[in-house]
Amino acid sequence: MRKDGRLANEQRTVELDLHFTKHAEGSVLISVGDTKVICTATIEDRVPPFMRGKGKGWITAEYAMLPRATEQRNIRESSKGKVTGRTMEIQRLIGRALRTVVDLPKLGERTVWVDCDVIQADGGTRTAAITGAFIAMCLAFEKAMQKEQMVEWPVFDYLAAISVGMDSSKQVLLDLCYEEDASADVDMNVVMTGRGALVEVQGTGEEAVFTRAELSKMLDMAEIGIKELVTLQQQKLGATGVRIQDTKGDQQHGD
Amino acid sequence: MRKDGRLANEQRTVELDLHFTKHAEGSVLISVGDTKVICTATIEDRVPPFMRGKGKGWITAEYAMLPRATEQRNIRESSKGKVTGRTMEIQRLIGRALRTVVDLPKLGERTVWVDCDVIQADGGTRTAAITGAFIAMCLAFEKAMQKEQMVEWPVFDYLAAISVGMDSSKQVLLDLCYEEDASADVDMNVVMTGRGALVEVQGTGEEAVFTRAELSKMLDMAEIGIKELVTLQQQKLGATGVRIQDTKGDQQHGD
Amino acid sequence: MRKDGRLANEQRTVELDLHFTKHAEGSVLISVGDTKVICTATIEDRVPPFMRGKGKGWITAEYAMLPRATEQRNIRESSKGKVTGRTMEIQRLIGRALRTVVDLPKLGERTVWVDCDVIQADGGTRTAAITGAFIAMCLAFEKAMQKEQMVEWPVFDYLAAISVGMDSSKQVLLDLCYEEDASADVDMNVVMTGRGALVEVQGTGEEAVFTRAELSKMLDMAEIGIKELVTLQQQKLGATGVRIQDTKGDQQHGD
Amino acid sequence: MRKDGRLANEQRTVELDLHFTKHAEGSVLISVGDTKVICTATIEDRVPPFMRGKGKGWITAEYAMLPRATEQRNIRESSKGKVTGRTMEIQRLIGRALRTVVDLPKLGERTVWVDCDVIQADGGTRTAAITGAFIAMCLAFEKAMQKEQMVEWPVFDYLAAISVGMDSSKQVLLDLCYEEDASADVDMNVVMTGRGALVEVQGTGEEAVFTRAELSKMLDMAEIGIKELVTLQQQKLGATGVRIQDTKGDQQHGD
Amino acid sequence: MRKDGRLANEQRTVELDLHFTKHAEGSVLISVGDTKVICTATIEDRVPPFMRGKGKGWITAEYAMLPRATEQRNIRESSKGKVTGRTMEIQRLIGRALRTVVDLPKLGERTVWVDCDVIQADGGTRTAAITGAFIAMCLAFEKAMQKEQMVEWPVFDYLAAISVGMDSSKQVLLDLCYEEDASADVDMNVVMTGRGALVEVQGTGEEAVFTRAELSKMLDMAEIGIKELVTLQQQKLGATGVRIQDTKGDQQHGD
Amino acid sequence: MRKDGRLANEQRTVELDLHFTKHAEGSVLISVGDTKVICTATIEDRVPPFMRGKGKGWITAEYAMLPRATEQRNIRESSKGKVTGRTMEIQRLIGRALRTVVDLPKLGERTVWVDCDVIQADGGTRTAAITGAFIAMCLAFEKAMQKEQMVEWPVFDYLAAISVGMDSSKQVLLDLCYEEDASADVDMNVVMTGRGALVEVQGTGEEAVFTRAELSKMLDMAEIGIKELVTLQQQKLGATGVRIQDTKGDQQHGD
Repeated sequence: MRKDGRLANEQRTVELDLHFTKHAEGSVLISVGDTKVICTATIEDRVPPFMRGKGKGWITAEYAMLPRATEQRNIRESSKGKVTGRTMEIQRLIGRALRTVVDLPKLGERTVWVDCDVIQADGGTRTAAITGAFIAMCLAFEKAMQKEQMVEWPVFDYLAAISVGMDSSKQVLLDLCYEEDASADVDMNVVMTGRGALVEVQGTGEEAVFTRAELSKMLDMAEIGIKELVTLQQQKLGATGVRIQDTKGDQQHGD
Repeated sequence: MRKDGRLANEQRTVELDLHFTKHAEGSVLISVGDTKVICTATIEDRVPPFMRGKGKGWITAEYAMLPRATEQRNIRESSKGKVTGRTMEIQRLIGRALRTVVDLPKLGERTVWVDCDVIQADGGTRTAAITGAFIAMCLAFEKAMQKEQMVEWPVFDYLAAISVGMDSSKQVLLDLCYEEDASADVDMNVVMTGRGALVEVQGTGEEAVFTRAELSKMLDMAEIGIKELVTLQQQKLGATGVRIQDTKGDQQHGD
Repeated sequence: MRKDGRLANEQRTVELDLHFTKHAEGSVLISVGDTKVICTATIEDRVPPFMRGKGKGWITAEYAMLPRATEQRNIRESSKGKVTGRTMEIQRLIGRALRTVVDLPKLGERTVWVDCDVIQADGGTRTAAITGAFIAMCLAFEKAMQKEQMVEWPVFDYLAAISVGMDSSKQVLLDLCYEEDASADVDMNVVMTGRGALVEVQGTGEEAVFTRAELSKMLDMAEIGIKELVTLQQQKLGATGVRIQDTKGDQQHGD
Repeated sequence: MRKDGRLANEQRTVELDLHFTKHAEGSVLISVGDTKVICTATIEDRVPPFMRGKGKGWITAEYAMLPRATEQRNIRESSKGKVTGRTMEIQRLIGRALRTVVDLPKLGERTVWVDCDVIQADGGTRTAAITGAFIAMCLAFEKAMQKEQMVEWPVFDYLAAISVGMDSSKQVLLDLCYEEDASADVDMNVVMTGRGALVEVQGTGEEAVFTRAELSKMLDMAEIGIKELVTLQQQKLGATGVRIQDTKGDQQHGD
Repeated sequence: MRKDGRLANEQRTVELDLHFTKHAEGSVLISVGDTKVICTATIEDRVPPFMRGKGKGWITAEYAMLPRATEQRNIRESSKGKVTGRTMEIQRLIGRALRTVVDLPKLGERTVWVDCDVIQADGGTRTAAITGAFIAMCLAFEKAMQKEQMVEWPVFDYLAAISVGMDSSKQVLLDLCYEEDASADVDMNVVMTGRGALVEVQGTGEEAVFTRAELSKMLDMAEIGIKELVTLQQQKLGATGVRIQDTKGDQQHGD
Repeated sequence: MRKDGRLANEQRTVELDLHFTKHAEGSVLISVGDTKVICTATIEDRVPPFMRGKGKGWITAEYAMLPRATEQRNIRESSKGKVTGRTMEIQRLIGRALRTVVDLPKLGERTVWVDCDVIQADGGTRTAAITGAFIAMCLAFEKAMQKEQMVEWPVFDYLAAISVGMDSSKQVLLDLCYEEDASADVDMNVVMTGRGALVEVQGTGEEAVFTRAELSKMLDMAEIGIKELVTLQQQKLGATGVRIQDTKGDQQHGD
């Protein structure tokens, strides 16, 4: 039994508060237990220099935490004058994951900016950010379709992420809160699609190691959690979700 | 009659959602119409170098906007690697205003960090930040009193702020929303205490000028708005507010 | 009686040494007592990106202090690698004030860069900078008219600035020197036009507050000082000054 | 058959040129085919602020590429004034991996700086850096033991890393060169210990996804490659390697 | 005959306006023709970290130009966020040169900061800065002796600098103005002591080369100029100069 | 007799390992005793903004040291976020020297980037960098000629550099190693062409001074060393070297 009464394979309550802010084309407040992240998506009518003239779009993400999202106040990255390595790692991960389920040529030469701002942190902020970012991006595409800025629906699969870990007694746990994460021996972030394909697997021994069998157990548990997240995404996205199910990526991957 | 149906001297609905985040010693979500700012207060057990050994505390503020708090996405200051002039101006203003109603020696050698993060902007973000920051700071002091980290209550007056402006037909308006602010000839931010004293008056002709009589009219209107804000602060702070009324600053100013 | 023998409403001796440096299109050394600022104006044949294609010009200011302009050596901002909040606040103020008395469309798509470099500081550097910057800008326009780079004279009013303050015994003082400024309860910077209209009012309680009546007294005194400064500007600008008197801004404001 | 004639499960020739530079306490030039990385280790007699007073040491890594290590010249990070996200990701990975096989309390309050500088790149620079960094670190510890700066040997297992990938025809390949890496659908970096435990698994779909079965096949292949790398490390380290085999970490992990 | 009527070996009129600013311990405005540099010296009661505990002092210099010191406005280094290579080269040169004629142990653990700010530039700013910096430094030492902060006079020789060059017709010229400098084939800066010893020789072919004989001719001419500069320094420093003549450096060099 | 057994006028063994890295158009590893520098040259098909439209090319250099090239680890400039003054001075020197022996119009509007990365330092890194950079640049031009990107050979003279110094007993030494350099009174870097003309002379008293006669002795010795370096360059460059001998610069200088 875990400190908050959850079973090993039980994730925290997830809430998706769609259209959370009024200016962004797509926005959602995702709460995973006490972890709360505002995700917004913005569509810009141009691509970064390295993508110009390729006839396709780009998706990029930024991630940040409010100073008191955490137990101890963390110094603003704008005050430091630079972005930390941890932040860069996370925003590269979010962008890469989103690009996996989108048919980039269908975007035209446009950039989707996804901003994930953690307003309260209790572990699993990067995976919550991915799950929420997917929703914000879909809402922004929905609006672009309505305004006829885009003609073809570009998203061909759902996308969600969850953390799993192994504690010092070799017990595998789903969806670690901050306290569990801090004491875990192994920490793994898994990103999967709605059709059950792996997008990203990042398993890290925190001054510890793990076996192939333990890796397998962690992946089994992550799969359970991600299925639940995708089901919730389907419920919340409604008609927009139907577009996803009916779309096939040119890459046809994940089947 | 204004676009949103308000009278010239009518401010937008203000909401104060206290204890909005769980980690900060004091926190509030202030909504002034569609302007929403998360204010948190953190008490740190040391002062910045220039204040060391003076036997008193310091209060400093930081202000930022989420990228899509605004109609157009604004680039993160952490990505730019520096804080803009506008941000610096605002955070200096917030800190200075808060220090005016606090008896700094009663803090001991501690720093109060107030973070004001705009999650949605529709004009008046800096004044909303001040009104909210005051609440967050009081809540943090309340907790410090309960934990007996501080022995004397340091806040001796309420503090709130509002914007007023004058449009091109010389009409004076209270609490400008973004659209009104963008087209105003004169823009003024006023910070006052609960006892009705002025703390800061910043009137700016936006490629326009104003007379002494117009200045007077704008200040009259600001006073009305700030009284309403202070009344709301009193209601929300309850017993904490009583501490404020019963305290006298060493400076005895504002009487 | 003040430390340097001045009356409460007496400003320090002001000197304007026009054409102080040889390369700039317009330049002046302004001395206000021991405060000395070199102001230069440069006209550049393009506008910043956000102004392009609007058929009008832009005026921007930069402000800096030599390291030993002050009693204690201050670290160069170039060595720090960033501009402080105080500097940004001041340069934004100077630019905004100058733009108020210039008909920007008459500039064409040109930028006026005004550089204000304090070589010796004794209080009131930002207000001296504004008073001097106005002269440097006018001299640069005069040269541009002579070279027929510009066809219409764009400045339609004089512009000057002064500080006022209130000491701890509630006495209102004009044109504070550094020592007076450091001990003042309230510090106010006022920018006005030659026709007597207010451009900017920035009154700040320095860990103190002020009443409406005190604000009024400070503004009365600022008005006296600014009239004297404008008279001096008129004398020094001579024929160029006549152009100002004969010009009307499209905005027709300040009447 | 691969372009350079290798079999799918065949890695490139690996060379370890120990004591490559004269100043560093430990140094090696590792060549993996045309990928060449200089790894040096430096022992500093203090730990970073966040580790002070814990009675244990710290290991940190830095990674960089010479501008013409690559086909196209890449701009120096010192000229850009900041380190890219990719670099940060890699140096965090190297440091984390090394810390997994070292008993940090045995270091005392010392920091090991491992510098990995790529002088020629042809894919797999981060995994080559880990395999080489392990050698440089061991050589530096050997010297510290000889000088009696350290009394207990701190490394309790070997450490090596390799990349595996899957091309668009679902073929799994070991040790990708740059050209293979650029066209792979899935790219995975695996870090393992000499005893065969996993330290880090980072599998990424490059705008593609992968199944659990494919993940398994990639891990099988990585295991083969890492065993060969550890055998080579054992040969090169000689007597120093014996110390590793005879040491047990307090954590006892990896058994 | 040169453009401004000077002979080849004739330098421009040099003026030294001592005590130019009131706050600095030592200050001078040096004018060399139209080149004008404000030099100030500040004595700080500590040394930089790399000098601590050595029982001797340090001398460091900073150099900057006002934006319109030059024909074209140059961007402030504080706005760029970094100091250019040219500036660094010059400030390193000034500091190094000054340290050559000062007995650093006599300073005690103090730092002399010399600030050289060019307010108008017409060639030879770095050499004018050295000649002026020497004066400012001596004045600051004089004040420190009077206040009994220092007990032994530390300067044991005069120091001055001048530029020489060779034009495309192989004519050697003394003290180049900007126009001459821009078209010269060879540009040489020479720093010498009052006793005639060389401190620094920097000869640079500007996309051209020079012979040993030409080098010799340029050094002969530099010697003439520097003697005149030292004579002027002696006149201006008066009694302070006598201290210099009577002092011998521990190094006894330059004899 | 010097510590390493060399005579005063004897330089260390110099090795030139051409084509050291595979990606760069031109590359060499130069070893001067224990000083080792990788020099690469890259030709880019455009010039920097300030050179556009002039119908000629540009040559620029960058210089860096690996962190453990030195006895003590030096912090990476990318970690500091800025390039030091020493680095800037050196890279400006290398670029300037190379441009002296190249007929820039023959390059067309192209930039040559020369990167000099010190992998092991033992004094004389900047002069080794120049001698090596010349080779790397020639190899890159050779390749460009073969690919017919350039039609005329642009290099009209050899270029090499060496350090000389004077120790505290006034003995002049050629090619100082680090230990000699650190204790020298005078340090001089000399750059010369194959035809024996001076390109750059930088003589610096390190808290010491020198006479004209001593300068002369140092230059005599530098000449000997540079002749040997040029002979080695000729041997290594072979047929490419013949192109140099047969070319005349438009400037005809160096005869």
